[in-house]
Order: sequence, then structure tokens, then C-alpha cells
Amino acid sequence: MYSAAQLSLYPMTDGFVGVILDAIGVLERYRPHLRTETDDLSTLIVAPPETLYPAMRDLFVAAAASGRHVTLSATVSRGCPGATDDPICGSDIATGPLPPLAGRITEAIAETRAAPITGIEIAAQFALYVPGSDSHSAEIAGCIEFLQGSGLRTTPKSLVTRIDGDAGPVFSTLGSAFWRFGHGSAHVVMDLTVSANSPSRR
Amino acid sequence: MYSAAQLSLYPMTDGFVGVILDAIGVLERYRPHLRTETDDLSTLIVAPPETLYPAMRDLFVAAAASGRHVTLSATVSRGCPGATDDPICGSDIATGPLPPLAGRITEAIAETRAAPITGIEIAAQFALYVPGSDSHSAEIAGCIEFLQGSGLRTTPKSLVTRIDGDAGPVFSTLGSAFWRFGHGSAHVVMDLTVSANSPSRR
Repeated sequence: MYSAAQLSLYPMTDGFVGVILDAIGVLERYRPHLRTETDDLSTLIVAPPETLYPAMRDLFVAAAASGRHVTLSATVSRGCPGATDDPICGSDIATGPLPPLAGRITEAIAETRAAPITGIEIAAQFALYVPGSDSHSAEIAGCIEFLQGSGLRTTPKSLVTRIDGDAGPVFSTLGSAFWRFGHGSAHVVMDLTVSANSPSRR
Repeated sequence: MYSAAQLSLYPMTDGFVGVILDAIGVLERYRPHLRTETDDLSTLIVAPPETLYPAMRDLFVAAAASGRHVTLSATVSRGCPGATDDPICGSDIATGPLPPLAGRITEAIAETRAAPITGIEIAAQFALYVPGSDSHSAEIAGCIEFLQGSGLRTTPKSLVTRIDGDAGPVFSTLGSAFWRFGHGSAHVVMDLTVSANSPSRR
């Protein structure tokens, strides 16, 4: 199952190039479990879902540690019908028949609560889409039940859901929302914005 | 039909607040045809599709005129089934039965070619989703035919399509892709990234 993120890191500082280059170095610790392609608009990370979210977390935490206002914007996709599969995306956990929904909700909550604390407070907002399918209402409802039980502060907004908290549990929650719900071969897309060190009041 | 964009403007400069505040002033020329809500993550613009794209164009062109590297990231949605309609979204052109596909392709190409030239070169990339529907392949094929005939440089990437050109025809093209294809009541989502003044080589 092809699984990838097209992401961009935006440091709001004259020294943005340095912040980006320093942060992107942390992806090396995830090789050979991911591959990347970069142009002037974004970096593509191709990896299984359980690698994508920790890699994005570490990338963002490294950039936010600069103290500058930084944001990350990403389109994350799995199971896109037009995409050729990539051997690097081989995943033990995100394919095959799904275990019962209630168990997945419990697992997702436990993983969020056990997530490492990074010391970086972030605000995230995301939308989750299941293109080309009418039969995912139980899975979406399960995902919402998980979010409500995650212990994080979630806020509905128009078009998106907002989550505030430490980068560790927030990225764990985002990852679970992306890959634990919707059957293994479904095309699932997450549109994601993450922000740290904003000078604006919430 | 509820139609809205959750967007963020990211100027890569220490003076990012001033660039954002100066640019956002241009939205006033579109009132009373839109309403906005802003928090520390994004600005929601609620407006009919034919207002949303010119408003985003003018906002982005104003920010790019600063000469700084700036990007815009947006989730744009119409017809979301959970959303309450808003009277401000009343649109003469984007609802009701669709005229034949061939005519819409011709109109979209003509509009792109007649679009005002802003003098601001941009690079955009987008993904278009039709959640909850299996029956849009002819409309998607029509949209691709339009993009190929638009006269702009389009490049396929993983998960997204890239378009380079002047902000006038590029935003016209993005707007047509968003509202001329997919039937009037369909839920259509565009995930959009726009960049100007990048120091990176393409």
C-alpha cells in the first residue's frame, strides 16, 4: 500500500533556510525506512504510516526548538488507487483485515497516553477524507470516539478539527486517526497543519 | 451550498506579522460577499466559489509583492454534508444541473486565457478530492483535459499536481478545477499550496 506525505516546513524568520536544513537532518535516523524527494515547494516522504508520523513529529520538533514561529503543512495519503506501490511502504500493522473497532479505539488511546513528551507545545488542525467510499461512517464515528477519549484538547472548526498539546501525544493521535480507522486498502487522506511558537493569542 | 476555505499565509521573514496584516486588508474589497473568522492557526473565508479564488489570489499577490518568500496553504471545500449552509454562499454559477462537460472545459480554458496578469509568478500544487462518491471519473477526466488545455505548465507529482505561471491565470485555473467539475451538490475538497519568491531552484 503506497503511503506518503507531501509536506512543507515554514519558519517565519529571515533565517528560514537554516532552520529547515537543520530540522530535515533528523530524518536520517529513520532511514532506510523512508525515502524522500524535495523540490522548491515541498518534500515527499514515502514510508509506512507508523514511520511517517514519528518522522514528521521529529522534523517539526527540531524546527520548533529554534524558538521561531514555525508551521508544517502536509497532505498525507495511503491507498491512493492511482499510485504505484513502493516496497519501502511495507507495513505489518496497517494492512490486512481490521480487528474490531472497540479494540482499535482502546489501543489508540493507550498509545497516545504513553507517547513520549517532547516539551514542545503545538496546535494542529486536520481534515480526514475517504475519497470514493460511502461506507465509512462507523469507522469515522470510531475515530471521533478515540479523539474524545485521547485526553487532548480537541476543538471543532469549520472544515477541520483542532488539537492542542505536546507534540508527542498530538502526533501519536494524528497517526492513529490516519491509519487505525478505515479498512486496510481504503484510500485515506489527511490534510494537516501544525504550528508552534505563534505570537498570536489563541 | 456551504463553500469555504481555511487558509494560512506564511511569510518567511522576521516581519511576518506586518506582511500578513497588510495583505489581509485586500479582502475588504470583497465584502459583503464573504465573511472571515481568524484564530492563531488560520483564517476561514466563507464565500461562493467564484469569490473565494479571486479573494485568495489578491491576498496572495499582496503578500508576494513584499518581495519576501511567502506561501499560502488552504483547505477549500464545497458541499460538505455536515456543514450548515450560509446565505453568503449563494451562487448563481456553481449550483443546479451542470451544462455538458465539453462546454465547461471550453469555458474554463477561455477564462484562464482571459485572466488578468498580475506580474507575480507563482508555483502552486493541489489535490482534488470527491469524498463519498465513486461516480466522478468523467468529471475528473474533464478537469484533466481542461488543465492540459489551459496553456499553463502543469507537472504531475506524487499526490498532487503542480502548476506554474502568473498568479492571475493560475488562480483562475484552480478556481475552475474546484467548481466547474463535479456535480453542483457534490462534496468537493481542494488541498492547495502556493509559493512565490522562493530562493530554491525549481
